[in-house]
Amino acid sequence: MTRIPAAVIERLTRYRRHLRILAASGQRRVFSHELGQLIGATSSQVRRDLMTIGFSGSPARGYDVDNLIEDIGAILDPGPDESFTQVGVGHLGRAILEYFHRRRPDMVFHSAFDSDPNVIGQVFGNCRVQDVARLEQVLADATPMVAILAVPRKHAQEVADRLVQAGVRGILNFAPLRLRTPDSVYVEHVDIAASAEKVLFFARQFGRSSEPS
Amino acid sequence: MTRIPAAVIERLTRYRRHLRILAASGQRRVFSHELGQLIGATSSQVRRDLMTIGFSGSPARGYDVDNLIEDIGAILDPGPDESFTQVGVGHLGRAILEYFHRRRPDMVFHSAFDSDPNVIGQVFGNCRVQDVARLEQVLADATPMVAILAVPRKHAQEVADRLVQAGVRGILNFAPLRLRTPDSVYVEHVDIAASAEKVLFFARQFGRSSEPS
Repeated sequence: MTRIPAAVIERLTRYRRHLRILAASGQRRVFSHELGQLIGATSSQVRRDLMTIGFSGSPARGYDVDNLIEDIGAILDPGPDESFTQVGVGHLGRAILEYFHRRRPDMVFHSAFDSDPNVIGQVFGNCRVQDVARLEQVLADATPMVAILAVPRKHAQEVADRLVQAGVRGILNFAPLRLRTPDSVYVEHVDIAASAEKVLFFARQFGRSSEPS
Repeated sequence: MTRIPAAVIERLTRYRRHLRILAASGQRRVFSHELGQLIGATSSQVRRDLMTIGFSGSPARGYDVDNLIEDIGAILDPGPDESFTQVGVGHLGRAILEYFHRRRPDMVFHSAFDSDPNVIGQVFGNCRVQDVARLEQVLADATPMVAILAVPRKHAQEVADRLVQAGVRGILNFAPLRLRTPDSVYVEHVDIAASAEKVLFFARQFGRSSEPS
């Protein structure tokens, strides 16, 4: 159970999103090819993924939607002591706090930090923004498992160092640089500008591919 | 040149970001192992990537930093008629408009749209927000190549349909659903909640891996 590859974890989050929609519309069972179609995977990929997590449904009769949501939840859901902290509450940080508050109340934000006096004290998605100078104190009693880092590039490494020192074990980093962290900390990097460049490149190619070559 | 895999395009954007930092600090040449270290790739990966784009530097003497920035730019940079449009100007849309305006002035936003009367008319990162009801009219004269979609989930498919109809060829989608689009349109999905779930999962595993198993 501890050896689930990152790509499977990503697909599990997407399966679950669609399973919840099916459940809400009253559907009780789902076939692997349906689930595959919804996320753009093959039915054999779906079956392999569900075997990986030890899900005991029968592919021939379709999987039980509610059971599958529950089993995926046992892998992905935060435990009672597992929370998030948001560091950097500009536009992006606010978008994140409000999105999670509205759509993912199971993912609890322990705290949120910024350095701007105009932002400190404001509330976004249930979280009152605190002064980043107090980060160590605030995280000392109940360290969140994961930090979401949305600070300017020039502060990102310093803040990451402090988060690691405070005991955070994972960082979702939106700042456009590669953080140096110990091997015991998991870092995922979301680079919106790089994604935009990639879309531009392929949009251009797709356009060209319809012309005679 | 037209067959560059998506993974190579992603690495090119990251190479370039680091190359610009090296250039700004006065470094003229860079070895493949240095460049690899900066983005977390092997030196042979770097050499393969640069061969893929036909870069004619000599790995033994190091690559010329300025030439490499220029050659990567020829692949990634928007052409004179290639622009973006932002649809959805909530917190996330604002973060995107202001980030690109400040950090990537080469990536031009042709327009920005929202449906909220309080947001329409406001300016973010140089772009005045227009009423999404006028999308077709505004895009008619100079269609942007790529749309960045940051609207609520329930509106995403309808807006995507209108964008495709208007001639947009690529969509960077932040709404948590899989868009149905023609094969001629390239769609990239950024799912922040899924990334957060993934970090949580691996942060938890990393923590456990130090305990006796």
